[in-house]
Amino acid sequence: MSHRVYLDWNATAPLRPQARDAASAALDVVGNPSSVHAEGRAARRLVEAAREQVAALVGSDARNVVFTSGGTEANVLALTPVIGAGDARYVRLMVSAIEHPSVLAGGRFAAEEVERLPVTESGQIDLSSLQRRLAADAGKALVSLMLANNETGVIQPISEAAQLVHAAGGILHVDAVQAVGRIPCDINALGADLLTLSGHKIGAPKGVGALIRRDAALPIPDPLIRGGGQERGARAGTENVVAIAGFGAAAAAALAGLAAESGRMLALRSRLEAALTRVSPRAVIFGAEAERVPNTTLVAQPGMKAETAIIAFDLDGVAVSSGAACSSGKVQPSHVLAAMGVPPGLARGAIRLSLGPTTTESDIDRFIEAWIKVSAALLKESQGIAA
Amino acid sequence: MSHRVYLDWNATAPLRPQARDAASAALDVVGNPSSVHAEGRAARRLVEAAREQVAALVGSDARNVVFTSGGTEANVLALTPVIGAGDARYVRLMVSAIEHPSVLAGGRFAAEEVERLPVTESGQIDLSSLQRRLAADAGKALVSLMLANNETGVIQPISEAAQLVHAAGGILHVDAVQAVGRIPCDINALGADLLTLSGHKIGAPKGVGALIRRDAALPIPDPLIRGGGQERGARAGTENVVAIAGFGAAAAAALAGLAAESGRMLALRSRLEAALTRVSPRAVIFGAEAERVPNTTLVAQPGMKAETAIIAFDLDGVAVSSGAACSSGKVQPSHVLAAMGVPPGLARGAIRLSLGPTTTESDIDRFIEAWIKVSAALLKESQGIAA
Repeated sequence: MSHRVYLDWNATAPLRPQARDAASAALDVVGNPSSVHAEGRAARRLVEAAREQVAALVGSDARNVVFTSGGTEANVLALTPVIGAGDARYVRLMVSAIEHPSVLAGGRFAAEEVERLPVTESGQIDLSSLQRRLAADAGKALVSLMLANNETGVIQPISEAAQLVHAAGGILHVDAVQAVGRIPCDINALGADLLTLSGHKIGAPKGVGALIRRDAALPIPDPLIRGGGQERGARAGTENVVAIAGFGAAAAAALAGLAAESGRMLALRSRLEAALTRVSPRAVIFGAEAERVPNTTLVAQPGMKAETAIIAFDLDGVAVSSGAACSSGKVQPSHVLAAMGVPPGLARGAIRLSLGPTTTESDIDRFIEAWIKVSAALLKESQGIAA
Repeated sequence: MSHRVYLDWNATAPLRPQARDAASAALDVVGNPSSVHAEGRAARRLVEAAREQVAALVGSDARNVVFTSGGTEANVLALTPVIGAGDARYVRLMVSAIEHPSVLAGGRFAAEEVERLPVTESGQIDLSSLQRRLAADAGKALVSLMLANNETGVIQPISEAAQLVHAAGGILHVDAVQAVGRIPCDINALGADLLTLSGHKIGAPKGVGALIRRDAALPIPDPLIRGGGQERGARAGTENVVAIAGFGAAAAAALAGLAAESGRMLALRSRLEAALTRVSPRAVIFGAEAERVPNTTLVAQPGMKAETAIIAFDLDGVAVSSGAACSSGKVQPSHVLAAMGVPPGLARGAIRLSLGPTTTESDIDRFIEAWIKVSAALLKESQGIAA
């Protein structure tokens, strides 16, 4: 696949070299981090060094980081009515309509306790609606909002939302999986009480993530996985030392490279979107009027179906996505575009192009060549069928 | 650590070379297994090939394997009142008193629904007690028993228990984490309805395990981690491709090597135990009268405290354990030995020696030298204090 163009970084990022080195080295560390002997302590050191690195990526302390098996598990761990100190019990979970499926599923809240908040046409959470719902609510609410949407890349007004949530006595969980490494993501600046990260979206191996709390005084939600006392009781199970070591290295590299990488990605995306609108004036870029992370473009061209298009792109050597990769084969209309009020016909054509730190100008140009070829073939076909 | 002796394989096993090769190769596979493009399909192939290999290790089919982040998560996934088809709801969870903490915690059963079954002095589940409790129970029971105990290595009478459980209309979950790769472990021969495996106990990377069902007709318990549709809806989250690939390779190697490796471990353990009883006639080997997996010895010598001893062994270049590694630093008396009726004073001296496929005669002999040295020093010290 050396000559392929990979534009599906929001599904998963290629391993960063620093993460590969750290993970490869960790493969040879024998011990269980819970063991007291030298082998165990060596494994423990890797885990704790990575915890520092991951904490630093979001401006937090190592003691506030709970490692999980990924972003999905971190989201489910966060979303529980039993959270916070004392007798606090959150009676409602509010999520935006464009959250990741693991948040929409409501974690450990009962279905009737979960409320979906609308978004605007540009794909941003409707703050006035959030404020109304918070005011109407008799009991305390846990609110879960993503920092950047995985399909459109649209950045959400998290710090404004945090002020509203806190003023109403609620607590805010932020799924930052698709934002971190692309925009600054400081847990204090955001005002998030809990933050979810995923390793493999920033170039760590798959199978690791973290739930991070803003304040050590906030008890981490009741454990989802109970057993041994790992992660200070918040998450049982032998630590995934290899992936955690890779996560730490990827976090350090992402933090060090943030300004340069996001600038690069933005320049490449501008090149991409300029070319797209030049060759396909009817193409629609979703969320373009809002602020977006610099690596994501969600585009549709009337008459071109994404399902067919991504297969054609793949055959042409270009990996792109029709939206979220989590739906595992199920071809479903995008809940994100539906929430934005995009007509189903247009939404069916949505193709997600997501870039990364190693994407090149030549990748963009090759994609545009493929786009011209594929769209010509598919539009012709669709007109032929219509005729 | 090249000259160290590692006798803590029950805490975690060094990586098998086959697992290292598979995991290293998987680090370079870019795609998300849920993506439809070539990169995604390449990742998917690794996961599905590993699923076949893990299924084969326990005589099952690939479609019956749910990958998890480890044995602990698999146990919690299994232990839910909502299991099986139709309106089945299990009103009680019965576990033996010597189960792993992740089973003792009761999974998603309420604390008052969990019942602990006693074990005999030799460390085996008391079948007559199981039978009585099953008969006394008005509602259907989910029973969770381990195949081999992590501390003593004692093998449990699972197929006999399965007959009792099934005759009473119950369902049997078996935690086979410490048995697989050491004794034959066929899910059908055992009569287990659900079986837990852990990758890192058989030489795969840490961070992967599996819950395996006996029959495709048995719906897997309600997901613990909800979100995307991965693992046929049983476990959401992007698959841990690297660790899963390593798990598959380790499973294949463990299956192929089972007869030779278990024979080798048994011979080495016999050498170990013969030497121990020769140099320390007062030493007690727990569960020695029962059938045990061939790699585990739990031994205590009156007057020698495990806490102090394992540090002394470590300084002498030998890694051993005072029991389970999951307790993460908490020095607690063994619940296993307490359940077997071992007096606390003796239990405090219990040292676990666990061997693996690459343990050598020289490792055993070096451990015995260390034992002589450490026990002489510590017994002298303890007598000095007593005097």
